[in-house]
Amino acid sequence: MNEIVLPDAVVDRGGGGGRILLVVVDGLGGLPRPGTGRTELETARTPTMDALAARASLGMLEPVAPGITPGSGPGHLALFGYDPVRYSIGRGVLSALGVGFDLRHGDVAARLNLATLDGEGRVVDRRAGRPSDEEGRRIVQKVREALEPLEEVEVFVEHVKEHRALLVLRGEGLGAELADTDPQETGVPPDEVRAADEGSERTGRLVRAFLGRVREILADEPAANHLLARGFARYDGYPSVEERFGLRALAVAGYPMYRGVGRLVGMEVAAPRDDVEAVGTVEERFDEFDLTFLHFKAPDARGEDGDFDARVEAIEAVDGRLDRLVGLDPEVLVVTGDHSTPAAYRAHSWHAVPVLLASPWARPTAEEFGESACRGGDLGRIQGKHLISLALAHAGRLEKFGA
Amino acid sequence: MNEIVLPDAVVDRGGGGGRILLVVVDGLGGLPRPGTGRTELETARTPTMDALAARASLGMLEPVAPGITPGSGPGHLALFGYDPVRYSIGRGVLSALGVGFDLRHGDVAARLNLATLDGEGRVVDRRAGRPSDEEGRRIVQKVREALEPLEEVEVFVEHVKEHRALLVLRGEGLGAELADTDPQETGVPPDEVRAADEGSERTGRLVRAFLGRVREILADEPAANHLLARGFARYDGYPSVEERFGLRALAVAGYPMYRGVGRLVGMEVAAPRDDVEAVGTVEERFDEFDLTFLHFKAPDARGEDGDFDARVEAIEAVDGRLDRLVGLDPEVLVVTGDHSTPAAYRAHSWHAVPVLLASPWARPTAEEFGESACRGGDLGRIQGKHLISLALAHAGRLEKFGA
Repeated sequence: MNEIVLPDAVVDRGGGGGRILLVVVDGLGGLPRPGTGRTELETARTPTMDALAARASLGMLEPVAPGITPGSGPGHLALFGYDPVRYSIGRGVLSALGVGFDLRHGDVAARLNLATLDGEGRVVDRRAGRPSDEEGRRIVQKVREALEPLEEVEVFVEHVKEHRALLVLRGEGLGAELADTDPQETGVPPDEVRAADEGSERTGRLVRAFLGRVREILADEPAANHLLARGFARYDGYPSVEERFGLRALAVAGYPMYRGVGRLVGMEVAAPRDDVEAVGTVEERFDEFDLTFLHFKAPDARGEDGDFDARVEAIEAVDGRLDRLVGLDPEVLVVTGDHSTPAAYRAHSWHAVPVLLASPWARPTAEEFGESACRGGDLGRIQGKHLISLALAHAGRLEKFGA
Repeated sequence: MNEIVLPDAVVDRGGGGGRILLVVVDGLGGLPRPGTGRTELETARTPTMDALAARASLGMLEPVAPGITPGSGPGHLALFGYDPVRYSIGRGVLSALGVGFDLRHGDVAARLNLATLDGEGRVVDRRAGRPSDEEGRRIVQKVREALEPLEEVEVFVEHVKEHRALLVLRGEGLGAELADTDPQETGVPPDEVRAADEGSERTGRLVRAFLGRVREILADEPAANHLLARGFARYDGYPSVEERFGLRALAVAGYPMYRGVGRLVGMEVAAPRDDVEAVGTVEERFDEFDLTFLHFKAPDARGEDGDFDARVEAIEAVDGRLDRLVGLDPEVLVVTGDHSTPAAYRAHSWHAVPVLLASPWARPTAEEFGESACRGGDLGRIQGKHLISLALAHAGRLEKFGA
């Protein structure tokens, strides 16, 4: 029950049952403001969420495990019913998802840093003086234009942001067990490309050739004269939410990373320009899907800014958008977050995340949505990966286990 | 701690410690009545349970896992300390337990449906027009009388109810990995008997011969002219509560299914005619056993009827019976359910189940027994399979773990 999320026997893949709307307010959980003792969510005026809470089972979600701060990938995978430890996403793959790169099964991806080497080939600056986005793009473009094909493997180099870029190799039978070449310190040369298993030897040869060629192409650059690689990972795809839970699913998210995690588990994706368009998309397409996942980014971003009041406003803005979604009358409406991002902490944190699951079969315990109310809720404190079982059960999509 | 229910080292099999009385109120957990917000248990007047709660640790039990609705088998196995996913009971075995059939280790059991085939051998009615109990019994009797022995294997056919019957094969080395012959639809012939492993080939041959003979025996029947089989399962027995926990145990239950699950884990069984006799049996035999399990059925049945008020009355009736049991002064008295059966839901559900564990070593938190009180209790929300460890601990039956 820890490895598997629910016994396979109980999943009704016939597709019967009600529709599920999963609203993820990124970084929803917070910390109390000294003086009031109320978190951002508890401070915000959220009439729609409060009304939902009054007909919902409440609880606290633990995204991964006690004390573990999840990245966005694991946080969302857990909400989709995937054990985030078992289904870990390699950093290279996550980077590719983050820039909306269309990964295919078997692709090997890695993060790249533009870097500066001195005349002896030692790393002087692991970030090449933090170039602007424009300058970073120029360098990456220079590499792309001068690069020749490597054997029968396609090589993609994509600029991400400032000094960060992405490498993807596409070909048959490429392993990804390669050590980082980024030495994580200056004054030493980049580490050698080393393959940790036989299946990755060829990939290692290709990466070595690629980096050798990069050295030549960028030789005349004053700052960014090389690339450091790390986080090699292969994209093999996961069993989809349709295969596992019988759910045709849609991911509606303005940021590529969240669409990417949705695509990873077989969701269709929609890319709204803003939250208004996001809600409109959900309204239009809701009836086509069993599960609709809608992502709101701002409360997480304001948490990383460390701005309590702006975070309160961002949560209130989300609440203002939910009204129309309640009108869709989903059988199950879940509001939660993928992790906490308390303004006081200015970063993702390990704290449990409030969750409400509104349904005719709920056991309501409070008339407001917030950490305090959720702590006393009927769902108790549950692991994020178990949320999907509860949503499926309330939607009438699970069979009885045993007779 | 998840696979095993408690570390083996701590179980004191010497037999020291107090007696445990486990009262299972079938389907105890409920949903709030709109208007009052109180569940069936919270609505019922239960002076004895409330007095027990005042000297008990309270909590909420999750029978299997979040969102999982247990059948009666898994629900009870969990209460007896058996991980219900690891110790899953095949449907055929459960049917046999349900009619009180005396299964022996190695028996293979399956569910049978009386069915109607047309002249081309296609299934016309998977339930043979839903015969009365009397008619169903007649058909099964006809099969029994005409059936010749199959090799050296004993064949039992037992009528269960209406169109439902039971098949048991008893012999050496019979595998049970056989696919259902019930095609689950009409207009097609029954599926072939197919063995999924080598050890089940012989069983497959025997079942094929059995069904061929049934076809001949019932050829002149207008409706029930064949049998469909499903849920083949082998009964291998489980380690007993005595082996695992050092408990000599008695199951007192009016319904065969619950005695059957008790027998499955090595309990002696008693079959009272009604709840009054059940309480009398517990009073008489309590001193002979370390663990006595007493089952009350009515609150579950009234839940399936969807009758909130009748369910309240059934719970009040159980409460009225408990008074005499409290007089037995068990070291540990547990009152809980195997799952929830809310009247509003009219079926078993996944909702957590209130539990009270009365003991001199309790941490009481409320003076009434109900979902709301139990949510705030000292035990928190625990998996059903962990209840036995708590009962054993409070009874002084567990050693310290480690030095």
